[in-house]
Amino acid sequence: MSGAGEILVVGLGPGPEFWRTPEASAALERATDLVGYQPYLARCPERPGQMRHGSDNRVELERARLAIDLASAGRVVAVVSGGDPGVFAMAAAVVEAVEADAAARHLSVTVMPGVSAMQAAAARLGAPLGHDFCAISLSDNLKPWTLVERRLRAAAAGDFVVALYNPASKARPTRIFDAFDLLRNVKAGSTPVAFARAVGRPDERIVVTTLAEADPSIVDMATLVIIGSSESRLIDRPGGTPWILSPRQAGGGAA
Amino acid sequence: MSGAGEILVVGLGPGPEFWRTPEASAALERATDLVGYQPYLARCPERPGQMRHGSDNRVELERARLAIDLASAGRVVAVVSGGDPGVFAMAAAVVEAVEADAAARHLSVTVMPGVSAMQAAAARLGAPLGHDFCAISLSDNLKPWTLVERRLRAAAAGDFVVALYNPASKARPTRIFDAFDLLRNVKAGSTPVAFARAVGRPDERIVVTTLAEADPSIVDMATLVIIGSSESRLIDRPGGTPWILSPRQAGGGAA
Repeated sequence: MSGAGEILVVGLGPGPEFWRTPEASAALERATDLVGYQPYLARCPERPGQMRHGSDNRVELERARLAIDLASAGRVVAVVSGGDPGVFAMAAAVVEAVEADAAARHLSVTVMPGVSAMQAAAARLGAPLGHDFCAISLSDNLKPWTLVERRLRAAAAGDFVVALYNPASKARPTRIFDAFDLLRNVKAGSTPVAFARAVGRPDERIVVTTLAEADPSIVDMATLVIIGSSESRLIDRPGGTPWILSPRQAGGGAA
Repeated sequence: MSGAGEILVVGLGPGPEFWRTPEASAALERATDLVGYQPYLARCPERPGQMRHGSDNRVELERARLAIDLASAGRVVAVVSGGDPGVFAMAAAVVEAVEADAAARHLSVTVMPGVSAMQAAAARLGAPLGHDFCAISLSDNLKPWTLVERRLRAAAAGDFVVALYNPASKARPTRIFDAFDLLRNVKAGSTPVAFARAVGRPDERIVVTTLAEADPSIVDMATLVIIGSSESRLIDRPGGTPWILSPRQAGGGAA
């Protein structure tokens, strides 16, 4: 293999091809190698001669190092993530791996953004992120749970809409209950809540409820949770799931 | 005009066609009418017979009502926003207008997500949003400035990465200075800061600096500002703008 290697950090979007950017699709065509978590590779079209390097979850840094090795050998490597690689996905691991490897600093690295899960969920829900919001990963693999708690409290103190990523896994099935317990102590029970699972995929399921009535046991790792601000409200839709509106106009009411 | 009208709330993405989803492009082809802020309409391909209804900035609700009127008359109306319509854009205005109009509740309304400005900026910057973050609009047209201050303080208290939308306008040129003054009192001067203007467009300009050294006078309404967490760090790139990495691993250090 000759030529200059490259790393393309590609966001596949939430699932369906109609939510994948043309830039991402072109990268999947051009790459000589695809590197990623196995279920994301399965979403990429098969191309003759293209090598696939699938891996398990939770090995982001190893995956990034493999991409560096391949690109250093002259390959054009697409590192694929669901959603946006910059939002709780592979961009941080690739940048971290390049930082740690002086030779890799000279590689061409291009991050290609994508539609993230909270945006797909928001599209189905009307306008839940219509105002200031924050995004928090509930995963405590790489940060202490006390930091998650601090951020949930700060999000409530700032009366932000909150999008929760990675709300559950086999390794930490109870964290979403801890998070809801914390939020129920600092936000009104009437606050709108949505559980948006696998939006855009065949097994999409959306539940709209309130903080008081929400049952966090329905979440899994494919679920994105949205919790409103004090101004967010439910709007009934004839024959459909209610919308959540976080209005543009805000009065600054207490959380 | 016969047939059932529809409203398609379309996100054009940050600018270039390669960042526009196929769903959004198909909507622009299918629509009989385009409604939007004039500069966004200018980004849409011309189609024979398609009507364009351009408007000024800051008239989101009038624009949404026009879309309802047209759809009620059987038209297929694409309401276009830059970026993602769910992030500081037209989805909230359309949902609000539909809520206020009982007859409009029966209209088909589809929100189509897009890549938002913070994601395009993040792609250029490596991985500045690689960890928990929040998005705050500095516009105080529709909310009191005290609420913006409350959210900036909460974002610092939670040690979030912060993406600032709408950092400046003719009507409020000094707000970005107020925001930086506030943040400088509660975050370290070494905190990485990026000003990412018009990312993906011909007049793209990116400045990476620190909170202590940042000059907010360079922002305009096309600028997205990113301010790191206490863990974010700058990484030099040979011959390029430094990256900002907000690492996946976080220790829970003080803001």
